Amino acid sequence: MEEIYKAFANELIDAGLLIRTAIQGVYGRSAAFESVARGVDRIVAAEAISNGAQERSFPPVLPRETLRRTGYMGNFPHLCGSVHSFEGTERQHPELLEAVEKGENWTPWLTQTDMCLCPAACYPLYPTLVGTIPEQGHHVSLWSYVFRHEPSHDPARQQMFRMREDIRVGTPEQVQQWRSRWMDRGQEILTDLGLAATLDVANDPFFGRGGKLMGKSQREQEFKFEIFCPVASEEKQTAVASFNYHQNHFTHTFGIFLPSGEEAHTACIGFGLERVTLALFKRHGLDPSTWPSEVRARLWP
Amino acid sequence: MEEIYKAFANELIDAGLLIRTAIQGVYGRSAAFESVARGVDRIVAAEAISNGAQERSFPPVLPRETLRRTGYMGNFPHLCGSVHSFEGTERQHPELLEAVEKGENWTPWLTQTDMCLCPAACYPLYPTLVGTIPEQGHHVSLWSYVFRHEPSHDPARQQMFRMREDIRVGTPEQVQQWRSRWMDRGQEILTDLGLAATLDVANDPFFGRGGKLMGKSQREQEFKFEIFCPVASEEKQTAVASFNYHQNHFTHTFGIFLPSGEEAHTACIGFGLERVTLALFKRHGLDPSTWPSEVRARLWP
Repeated sequence: MEEIYKAFANELIDAGLLIRTAIQGVYGRSAAFESVARGVDRIVAAEAISNGAQERSFPPVLPRETLRRTGYMGNFPHLCGSVHSFEGTERQHPELLEAVEKGENWTPWLTQTDMCLCPAACYPLYPTLVGTIPEQGHHVSLWSYVFRHEPSHDPARQQMFRMREDIRVGTPEQVQQWRSRWMDRGQEILTDLGLAATLDVANDPFFGRGGKLMGKSQREQEFKFEIFCPVASEEKQTAVASFNYHQNHFTHTFGIFLPSGEEAHTACIGFGLERVTLALFKRHGLDPSTWPSEVRARLWP
Repeated sequence: MEEIYKAFANELIDAGLLIRTAIQGVYGRSAAFESVARGVDRIVAAEAISNGAQERSFPPVLPRETLRRTGYMGNFPHLCGSVHSFEGTERQHPELLEAVEKGENWTPWLTQTDMCLCPAACYPLYPTLVGTIPEQGHHVSLWSYVFRHEPSHDPARQQMFRMREDIRVGTPEQVQQWRSRWMDRGQEILTDLGLAATLDVANDPFFGRGGKLMGKSQREQEFKFEIFCPVASEEKQTAVASFNYHQNHFTHTFGIFLPSGEEAHTACIGFGLERVTLALFKRHGLDPSTWPSEVRARLWP
């Protein structure tokens, strides 16, 4: 697969759609790429908003405490991005500088801040919903840059990428029905864009051997579905959207309750904007001006 | 000033425009706030593009090597955001987890990655321009989230915020004339939005005592101008846009040449999207539907 990934990345870079940086999985993007990504984002956001979602927005850093309390470092420590900065004195500065200039490790002179990079667009939202939710629950649409430390040659596996998420907080029935409806609509949205979209049960990449068991249990309970499309390869397809039922995981952690006093449940769905965009370039070619008119009309109404 | 900042932040939070998080200087934003920020972004980008800028986009992480080579850690170590992750084994994981759960320092179990957070939207661009530039130079418009580690009660001093930048690479005359024209247009754009915008010479917040001298020299040589507007306070105004002439700082570092073989020069201008947005809320009130129709027409044509 490595050769297939590299060839696809080179094709996108040669066409000027992606711009290579010194970091695997971190790319600049052209205006054409961004225009497609914005179109995809608009379609997903419009679907959410027409169903009553309120838009909000968070920057891509969140409190370190949020990762601690949600157990992220137990499940996905290998993907985390912890933010460190220099809080030393003028006397310590030359020592830091010497390490920097020699290309050595900066860590001994840095202090961990109270921030980490967002691992998913919905994480910053939950702590802001503490308390009792209204009868109809919460329904929020947002996008964010998210970080996953997983360098890869696959242009569809970027280390910092954008996710449009729709989040529902309510009773178990409310959030499960909502997720189920989104699984249908998600496939329709992608099929309408000309993509061969297949829904399947899935699991998160939990860390270590214990993580394998957790993934198996997550699949058995159908807590996660993903929609797969061909991106770099037809055989090994790429997850471009996910549909997640968290039960009371976040509401128990932060204290988010139904009017009845019971813990609310949450579900979230997310579309990977870079991944859907790349799937479209793979499917329709590298020049969006030549794409089928019905696809163009949906992206840029 | 602290009380004035806190009062302004509370006003914005009570109006639902900003959403408080556990971190000073990190806020969620409402749909109304985002709509204004997008309007401001569109105005600045349209001005750049109508003058020939090409749009590009980079994620908010960049190679650590870029901070090293540009001397960022010499000048602004206190503002940096260095990204660290867990690369340990399953055997080391329980030790990390114990520190996390106790609320202790995670650092001993983390490894510095090859990424840092972007300190300014233009930093990721320069390394992609290595070599000889065309006769007419480069002109690029982009926005990015940028990170500055400076917790503050002032809602206009956020730790992760968005900047729309326009960057010019060319001869010294080309880039200086271009910056000079942008200083005029920048004031016009903000004045047209009803803001009391004042241009003044400025300096970057260089670290330490040596930094004071650098700031003085930067002012004397007029390498940095800023436009100031009232945001939290009328007396102590806030820089909402900056106009920077770098001479050959970035082109020397990365090897970017004029067709003549001499080093090119660069300049960049940047509008702080959160800051301009906050200035507008301060000036016209917290409900954009009541803003003057000519301001609304410019933001949402």
